[in-house]
Amino acid sequence: MNLAEAAPIASMAIGLLALLFAAYLYMRVLAFDPGTPEMQQVAGAIREGAMAFLKRQYRTLVVFAVLLALILAGVGFLDEVRGIHPLTAVAFFAGALASALAGFIGMQAATRSNVRTARAASQGMAQALSVAFSGGAIMGMSVVGLGLFGLALMVYVFGDPTDPVTLNIVNGFALGASSIALFARVGGGIYTKAADVGADLVGKVESGIPEDDPRNPAVIADNVGDNVGDVAGMGADLFESYVGSILATMILGLVAGGSATLAYVMLPLLVGAVGIVCAIAGTLMVSLRPNGSPHVALRVGTLSANVLALGGTYLLVRFLIPDGTGVFYAVAIGLLVGVFIGLITEYYTSSSYRPVRSVAHSSLTGTATNIMAGLSVGMMSTFLPIFLIGTGIALSYHFAGLYGIALSAVGMLATAGVTIAVDAYGPIADNAGGIAEMAKLGPGVRRVTDTLDSVGNTTAAVAKGFAIGSAALTALALFSAYAGTAGIAGIDLLQPVVIIGLLIGAMLPFLFGALTMQAVERAAFRMIEEVRRQFREIPGLMEGKAQPDYANCVSISTGAALREMIVPGTLAVVLPVLVGWILGKHALGGMLAGATVTGVLLAIMMSNAGGAWDNAKKYIEEGVHGGKGSEAHAASVVGDTVGDPFKDTTGPSLNILIKLMAIVSLVFAPLFGAGIIG
Amino acid sequence: MNLAEAAPIASMAIGLLALLFAAYLYMRVLAFDPGTPEMQQVAGAIREGAMAFLKRQYRTLVVFAVLLALILAGVGFLDEVRGIHPLTAVAFFAGALASALAGFIGMQAATRSNVRTARAASQGMAQALSVAFSGGAIMGMSVVGLGLFGLALMVYVFGDPTDPVTLNIVNGFALGASSIALFARVGGGIYTKAADVGADLVGKVESGIPEDDPRNPAVIADNVGDNVGDVAGMGADLFESYVGSILATMILGLVAGGSATLAYVMLPLLVGAVGIVCAIAGTLMVSLRPNGSPHVALRVGTLSANVLALGGTYLLVRFLIPDGTGVFYAVAIGLLVGVFIGLITEYYTSSSYRPVRSVAHSSLTGTATNIMAGLSVGMMSTFLPIFLIGTGIALSYHFAGLYGIALSAVGMLATAGVTIAVDAYGPIADNAGGIAEMAKLGPGVRRVTDTLDSVGNTTAAVAKGFAIGSAALTALALFSAYAGTAGIAGIDLLQPVVIIGLLIGAMLPFLFGALTMQAVERAAFRMIEEVRRQFREIPGLMEGKAQPDYANCVSISTGAALREMIVPGTLAVVLPVLVGWILGKHALGGMLAGATVTGVLLAIMMSNAGGAWDNAKKYIEEGVHGGKGSEAHAASVVGDTVGDPFKDTTGPSLNILIKLMAIVSLVFAPLFGAGIIG
Repeated sequence: MNLAEAAPIASMAIGLLALLFAAYLYMRVLAFDPGTPEMQQVAGAIREGAMAFLKRQYRTLVVFAVLLALILAGVGFLDEVRGIHPLTAVAFFAGALASALAGFIGMQAATRSNVRTARAASQGMAQALSVAFSGGAIMGMSVVGLGLFGLALMVYVFGDPTDPVTLNIVNGFALGASSIALFARVGGGIYTKAADVGADLVGKVESGIPEDDPRNPAVIADNVGDNVGDVAGMGADLFESYVGSILATMILGLVAGGSATLAYVMLPLLVGAVGIVCAIAGTLMVSLRPNGSPHVALRVGTLSANVLALGGTYLLVRFLIPDGTGVFYAVAIGLLVGVFIGLITEYYTSSSYRPVRSVAHSSLTGTATNIMAGLSVGMMSTFLPIFLIGTGIALSYHFAGLYGIALSAVGMLATAGVTIAVDAYGPIADNAGGIAEMAKLGPGVRRVTDTLDSVGNTTAAVAKGFAIGSAALTALALFSAYAGTAGIAGIDLLQPVVIIGLLIGAMLPFLFGALTMQAVERAAFRMIEEVRRQFREIPGLMEGKAQPDYANCVSISTGAALREMIVPGTLAVVLPVLVGWILGKHALGGMLAGATVTGVLLAIMMSNAGGAWDNAKKYIEEGVHGGKGSEAHAASVVGDTVGDPFKDTTGPSLNILIKLMAIVSLVFAPLFGAGIIG
Repeated sequence: MNLAEAAPIASMAIGLLALLFAAYLYMRVLAFDPGTPEMQQVAGAIREGAMAFLKRQYRTLVVFAVLLALILAGVGFLDEVRGIHPLTAVAFFAGALASALAGFIGMQAATRSNVRTARAASQGMAQALSVAFSGGAIMGMSVVGLGLFGLALMVYVFGDPTDPVTLNIVNGFALGASSIALFARVGGGIYTKAADVGADLVGKVESGIPEDDPRNPAVIADNVGDNVGDVAGMGADLFESYVGSILATMILGLVAGGSATLAYVMLPLLVGAVGIVCAIAGTLMVSLRPNGSPHVALRVGTLSANVLALGGTYLLVRFLIPDGTGVFYAVAIGLLVGVFIGLITEYYTSSSYRPVRSVAHSSLTGTATNIMAGLSVGMMSTFLPIFLIGTGIALSYHFAGLYGIALSAVGMLATAGVTIAVDAYGPIADNAGGIAEMAKLGPGVRRVTDTLDSVGNTTAAVAKGFAIGSAALTALALFSAYAGTAGIAGIDLLQPVVIIGLLIGAMLPFLFGALTMQAVERAAFRMIEEVRRQFREIPGLMEGKAQPDYANCVSISTGAALREMIVPGTLAVVLPVLVGWILGKHALGGMLAGATVTGVLLAIMMSNAGGAWDNAKKYIEEGVHGGKGSEAHAASVVGDTVGDPFKDTTGPSLNILIKLMAIVSLVFAPLFGAGIIG
């Protein structure tokens, strides 16, 4: 048995290795001191809230999943000859389960690491960083471990991987992952911002109590939101990209492989496996030296993983596809594009550089100029990433064709294990700060958690850029796979039906953006009313003599998040099918292209504008332009509030929109023809 | 000689008729009383400022035009065999001259009608409306008259219109019109908002003096800006669309015409001619009955013109192309789409409907929610127009192929004479109000001018929607013409180079948006400094004992506008050539499609968000949610300020971007091949 034949087994084994490593980290985290009873009480409330959200989310999901699975199975049985196998429904369930499980493990870990980080902070920065990062790495390893294991298992179970039918079935796995991502990312995004805006507007602005004050009824919901949005949401988003990019590359490998089809089909799985090993190594390299910077420590981890992955995939390709230098280049290009997009994002969202400082400066002339400056920074920040992605596409195509473009997405995501770890570390540090505040730990502890939190803000912005970039490449890979599966030889922009598809597709991110922004507005409004009510009706609350009703705020966020995502979620699933059916498969291709392109642009713009506003505010809070309490600060707070749904709800939701629509199109591709009015 | 053969002569005659009608209106306006010496002094300052801007703009333009003409002629002589005729440079000059002349006439008329409107307001609403609308109609008639006359003259002069070479030469005319549009719309947009924001922030907010107060040094620049941006800018924008859509349709007629080529090529010119006659009729129908509403009076004019045009083009098509019912449908579809886009725009930007009221309501919870609500309304408002444009494309293609799509743009613009009249009426009424305030006319006069101004706000928003819709269809028509001229059989989205073009194209509106927003910010900042300086350094200014230095503010706006448009303007001209040359003609096609689609979406979003913010503020000022002076009002003022560059600079500039790039591509199309790295 050669390597290509052994690939599914090998990938499953490496996937399991990642899960074992996650288990090891989990035990390491649990071994840390969970802190005083007061801290544990706060942490318990956060965990409870997070689990309550997951539970209700999964309950809703089951309905959605069963419905979709029935449709899949039904279409499959009716329509098997045309390419949708009934087993797709089984793969769909497996994908949903794997992603949900990864989210569950990650949330369990995050809500146990936060309090231990707060406790460890009293022993110093190094200790605290270690706990928080380990907590994040559990999420990272669960995502890539379950992703790779699941995909490899599907391939192993469903027959010959060089048979298109097998891969069509496995598409169900990606669709399952996408469905979870929809709930976790869109619902989570609405949850976290409703709670955040509600807590801030009434707590900080109206009542003048500090951030994370235990008297604020929405404070637990706000901390739950960090987990729900930034841990579970981000994890599910990257899980979807990870699975989607590998699968799309496998499908394109069927054509690209020529005489070496099996090797081409298996390469993306094996790149994932190599990436996991390198991500584990990178994770182990994160440690803070005395007087070192946490930012540098984290960067050492990701960079090491990427350098190792470059070497590892080189050897892999040498061995698997002896004449495959071009294929290796494609992987390398993806890796590099990912790294550079991170750096560009940092440039536009960190207060060390000109863009954020210009937003801070524009706050001097008031709120209006702050808003305009943030929007222009966001718009301007689309240029370099698009240039980079375009160059990446051109080069990887030059070296390895359409297969190369898809493979570069796999390369970008190969070390996702450590990328997610760095990202999920952020909300854990943030939560630790909240717990320290609520449990009234000393200023020394707050200083440590604040430093870790501010590092987390930068890594979060970078991770967002990475998530968008990988979503873009994944969506393009899925788009190519869709065209192949639908039997489309060309999608001609001179055909009006394609232009119409392009117009509709390009409009969808705007519509999706409006719907998610309005959802946050409505949900935040409800939260504001509830917080005001509690302040009004619970006697002694403001004096700290009575407990607020945290659970009610948690339940409002939870309910709103799940209710508000019904419309945008349904749109994302139904529209591709409708357009494919009515306008035909070429129009659907145009729609996917339009949605991907505009979606990526809007996501970059909104994400970076949000990050720039956020850090402009923090920059002013450091004492620049009058510092806290100045008019410039007041203006920057408004920008930050507008930026919140930009960067944490709408921006990230667009990643899901473009991938989900592509996957739905891919799964149902065999059904579409020239359209009923084509 | 049959009608098709007589078409150029007939079109020239009708073009002249429009100009004669404009001359008649001009004399009618001049016959009105120009008011008191004080009023004439204010009006004189505005006219002087407007003419100073035009003069400096045209001076810069000459350099630009000579440069471009030299390039065209040079390429033409070197490269004639490949399709760029040296005479293109002559047509280019003619196009630039015609558009500049239309702008000049329109500005002369507007700056003479404003003061006469203010004077007539003392005699009642009907009188004032009549003067202001006549003033606007002069612009409208000049645009369509010079546009149609010029185009027909080119066709008549440059030889056989069924020879592609002739039409390639005439493309130069459209390129000339586009160049003027670039300067007038982008430069004018920066001018008007720099002056407006500067006047408002220091005058209204910092110093607490009312709008249009003569003590405000920027007040003349602000009033000049209304003319520069809303009269000249809008006129040049629609001149470009008008000429571009007719020309693109003629080019597509070469292929679509079959045995009736000449009729197909000439039809768009003749539709323009019919449209002019109907626009004149519509203009004559605008008159205010006692106790009637000015809004209704204006609407009667546009609707009558459209109904007449429907009938007129039906007869025209019957006569010219006996089996051309499908062709007539395409014209009719364009007309209807134009009308409906206007209605949709009104829905999203008028305070009579839910969207604007929701923005006003969200001001109750502060500035942040006002901003978010405005942005969501803008995003949401993309849905219906895109749906409508998509349906229009599908139907007109169904009835008359690619030719039909282009022809629907011509149909939409056929009655542009009256549409522009209604739009240019707005700034004249606005100016009249300013003059009344500065010349201290009584409250009775202000009440009339305020009513006329508020009607003008709605018609301006509607005209913006119309300008975007027609720009979209024109750009698509030019895109098809480009493909034909470049000899492209298909632009395949599965080719990575096309996707790269699409990505770059879709990014450009964002880049252009950032550049123009930043330009306004910078120019407004300079204006703010100057106004502050004058208040500080001119003794007795605040007490009304000394005159401010209006001229300096005018000169700052003028200089800033022309300087700030160099970068975006150069991008728009150079990028299509660069992409066509380096990545090839297919990538350029992708780029045009991407830019058109995203440009239209961003333009709709920004335009409508700006309109919604503006009218939400006015709605609150009517007394809702606490009225003037309330916190909700303060929040709505911020939204309005952010919306100003949205709706008056960036949004409209995107129309120019997409059309200019399409025309540049069309003119240089014969030069492009597979690209140097294709």
